[in-house]
Formats: sequence, C-alpha cells, structure tokens
Amino acid sequence: MKEINIQAPATIANLVCGFDVLGLCLDKPYDLMKVKLLDERKVIIRSEDGYPLPTEPTQNTAGAPLLEILSETNLTIGFEVTINKQIKPGSGIGSSAASAAGAVFAANCLMGNIYSKNDLVRLAMFGEKVASGVKHADNIAPCIFGGITLIRSIFPLDIVSISAPPLIITLVHPQIEVRTSDARQILRKEVLLKDAIRQWGNIAGLVAGLMKGDYELIGRSLEDVIIEPVRSMLIPGFDEVKELCKQAGALGGGISGSGPSIFMMSRDLQTASQVEKIMQDLYFKLDIPHHTYITTINPNGISVQNDDHFP
Amino acid sequence: MKEINIQAPATIANLVCGFDVLGLCLDKPYDLMKVKLLDERKVIIRSEDGYPLPTEPTQNTAGAPLLEILSETNLTIGFEVTINKQIKPGSGIGSSAASAAGAVFAANCLMGNIYSKNDLVRLAMFGEKVASGVKHADNIAPCIFGGITLIRSIFPLDIVSISAPPLIITLVHPQIEVRTSDARQILRKEVLLKDAIRQWGNIAGLVAGLMKGDYELIGRSLEDVIIEPVRSMLIPGFDEVKELCKQAGALGGGISGSGPSIFMMSRDLQTASQVEKIMQDLYFKLDIPHHTYITTINPNGISVQNDDHFP
Repeated sequence: MKEINIQAPATIANLVCGFDVLGLCLDKPYDLMKVKLLDERKVIIRSEDGYPLPTEPTQNTAGAPLLEILSETNLTIGFEVTINKQIKPGSGIGSSAASAAGAVFAANCLMGNIYSKNDLVRLAMFGEKVASGVKHADNIAPCIFGGITLIRSIFPLDIVSISAPPLIITLVHPQIEVRTSDARQILRKEVLLKDAIRQWGNIAGLVAGLMKGDYELIGRSLEDVIIEPVRSMLIPGFDEVKELCKQAGALGGGISGSGPSIFMMSRDLQTASQVEKIMQDLYFKLDIPHHTYITTINPNGISVQNDDHFP
Repeated sequence: MKEINIQAPATIANLVCGFDVLGLCLDKPYDLMKVKLLDERKVIIRSEDGYPLPTEPTQNTAGAPLLEILSETNLTIGFEVTINKQIKPGSGIGSSAASAAGAVFAANCLMGNIYSKNDLVRLAMFGEKVASGVKHADNIAPCIFGGITLIRSIFPLDIVSISAPPLIITLVHPQIEVRTSDARQILRKEVLLKDAIRQWGNIAGLVAGLMKGDYELIGRSLEDVIIEPVRSMLIPGFDEVKELCKQAGALGGGISGSGPSIFMMSRDLQTASQVEKIMQDLYFKLDIPHHTYITTINPNGISVQNDDHFP
C-alpha cells in the first residue's frame, strides 16, 4: 500500500461539564485526506480546500506529527499529505485535531500499523501544540477512538471510552472568530471550591447517565458553572439559543470546544430538527452568517475510504 | 406494627476524588436501633451504648429528623428511639448519618412507608445539620440507598446509584479526634482550575471504572489532589499507610469522610488482610489506639432485623 484515503471527523471537546477531559466524535462533517508514502525522509503538505493554512510542515497540524514520526524512526520514508478540509478552521469542532489525527492514522496504516491508538493520540498532540500552543487530547482522542472519550490524564496518557445511548446532535457555527488562545486566557486560574464540587458532581452524573442510557440524567448533568459563564460572553446569542433549544425539548448542550460553535443533544431527529430551526432563525435575526449540522455520534472515529475523492 | 428493629450501616463519604458527592455503604459496622410508635406527639431518645451524645431530641441526630416528620404531619404520633451505637462517633464513617437515616427509615416503616427514599434522605439531612452544622447527604444517601451513590445535587435532590464490581474494603480508625467542622475549615475556598480539572477527570474515571468493573481504572482514579493533601496532615501516619497498602496490592483509598478513619479498596480478601496487618503494625508503632475492619459494600443499606437485639 503506497497511498491511502481517509475521512477524519469533527469532534466536540469538553461536553459542557467535562472541560479538558471529555470529547465526542461526530458523524459529520469530516475532512478528506490522502496520504502517500514517500521513499525519502520528508513531509509535504498540499491543501485543496482554499483555506489559508500554513503548508510548511513544522507549522502545519498534520505536518508536525508526521515529522515527529520521522524523528522517532530510522526508516527512510516520508509522507505527502493532501488535505481537503470540510471542517472550517476556527469553528470549535476539532478542525486542527482532524488534520493531526488523520495524518498519523493514515501514516500508521501505510507503515503496517506499528502504533497503538494511544501512540496515535500521543503523536497527534504534536499537531495540537502547533495549532494552539498546548498539547491537549480532548479532540484528538475521540477522533481516533470514536464515540465519547474521557482523557483521565495526559501524562501518562489514560483514555477511557464511555458508552452512550443514541443521541442526535445539532450544531450551529456562527461565523465569528474566537481564538482558542483567547478563550483560554479569559478563564480564571482559580475557581471556587463549591463550583468545582458542583462541576464534578455533574461530570460524574453525565458519565453515569451516558453509561446507563438515562436521558434525563444526561440532560440534568449538562451544566457548566465554571467555563460557560465566562466563555459564552464571546458568543452572541448563546444564552438565547440554549434556552430556546431546551424549551423545544433538547436534553442540553453548550459551547463546542472553545467555541464559537454551539451543540445541542436531542433524543430524536424531530427535536433535533426543531433545534436546528431555532438556531437558524436566531442567527438570521442577529445577521450573523452561520452553518448548521444535524448529526450523530460516530462510534468508529477516522475511517479509510475506498473511493478516491481527490482528482 | 408498633415497633421495629433495624441495622443502620456505616458509610464512607467522598471516596477520595468525589468530595461532597460520592458515598459508599459498608456491610459493617452498623448501629442497632429500635423505634417504637407512640400515640402522642413527642420524640424520646434513649442511648444504650454509653457514648455521651445528647438525648435532647432537638440536639440529637436521630431526634431532629423525627421532629421534622412530626412538624410536617398532622398525625397524633410520636417515636421512642433506642440506640445502640456500634459506629464510634467521630470516626469518620458516618456515625451521625446512621442514626439520622436509621431513625427516619424506621419511622417510615412504622407509618406505612409514606415516604420515598429521596424523602428519607431529605429528612435525615436534618440530623446531619445538628451534627455538623451543614445539610450534606454523602453519608445519608448510601446509608438509605445502599451501594455507591452519587449526590449530583442536594437542592434539588438528585441521587444516582453507581454499580460496582466486588470490592473488599479495609478500614482503620486511629483513635484521634478530627472534628468535621475543623476538617472543613482548613480547606481553601478557592482551588486551582488545573487541580479541579484533574479532580473531575478522576471522578469521571472512577465512575466509569466502577460501572465497567475495571479494577485498574478504579485504582488509577482514586487520586485526590485537592482535599487529601490538606486534610491528611490531621491524620498521623496517613501517607505511610497509603503508600504501604498500595505496595501490598490495594487498588487505592484515602480518608473516609473527614477522617480520621482511612479506607483501602482491594480486589480480594487476601490483599485486604495484608492491608489490615500493615495498618495495625503502623498504628501500633505510632502508639495510637485503633480499630480495623475488613468489610465489603452493602448493596441494600439499612435493613430490618427480625430478632430483637435489645433487652
């Protein structure tokens, strides 16, 4: 095998009460990537989507992890990566993670699957470091493992898959810019113990609710008293969207990653469609360009494509 | 039915990373209580254990919840409670909760089970208020529900039962005094966000580990970076006990409630016995009087006794 085509899906980090530790893999949107095995030690990045992302490998979220693979091995190999991004950069649904995770997943296939999934997460985090300055795995892990993942610890890496009942997810991406680094800087370094207790009660409730398939408990636990009150100020319409969607029957939801995308979880497609309509109406009223998606949990993560979607 | 005999078990609050929200019901020790239905509106508390606890109902942890029941109902009834405490007050394994929960459980049986388990938790918290000044449910809930409980929220009350694989629990009660109020006052009101994140990663891991029956994950998640480093200073020998017990194969453990009791979880009885020996040797060496128990999780909570253990 000299080349491979893959789909690298979008992901939702944090899941409201699981800041920095929970992530969920989405069925769509996903990036399309082709990776070719080269016979010399270099990494080439080609972009076919028109986004102004750096193609210098050290500065590219797909390139940096591949350079790390080369530096860890003595093999005389290299990679040429062609990326067709469907996940808009800066949307808060793991665009950088998809490139990083997709690149290492594809490289591993071409190298004969020498790496474990945990290895792939470790390697892909080099891409997140390029994108946001911090090695974090809350988008990478669900992209590679699929489903819902808990990153109990990064050093050492401890990833736990959390089972979940069927859930329909509605996403809206209001096209405003929220930089991950800005979204991080506005957080206080200290939090009240009583708020932290409420937060860990909620994450415990969410994990239990997901594993039991208890929709009511999932809904009650989707509460964030620490991050959301601060970050939601960066997203026009956030409080109104959330309130109206819950009134329409959504279980709950919040900011996807560091925003600006907002997600809502519903039990059925009919509710998810009403939720989408509410999101569209509000951002139309606010005169903010936006995309919406109705999707589900992708239980498998990155997948290999048989058809070549590239010219 | 005019009288009833019950066993009200000891409980472990907090479970290391679940401060204020997790609790576990123990198979032993347990208090013995007899409650008689009276035909006048009064509460009488009798103690048969020699502990110098107040018998004035408003000041007694069993009395206060029963007075609350009377104030909520128009019935011309009352209760005479005889308590034989086997759970030493101040040991940190839910002695006050056992009296409060046992009293309302027994009263409810005598009244024809008019209250739900959630009601009983709400009522029993009036006893915790007498004991520690704060309405908390992390001992009450497991005492009434049995097993391991998550108190996701107190107002409104939201109690979630968490399933668990077989676990053997070794307890040591070094007989020093740690007041719950003191143990609370030494905690900082603010914590670092990075520590809170680590804590909620651990509680999510613990809940997932318990529900999956994944002993290794349970062990890795039994870490407390916020409360234990402060409170353990009040318990001589804590760090050494914990280190030695884990070396001997215990999955992990920590301070029970606000201490001074220390608990360790093991997969099998043999390890739990070695853990007990380590605890006994250390506190013998430190010349601190102590009790140890080897016990398991009680899945049922308070139980009705057929035999009358009272004279």
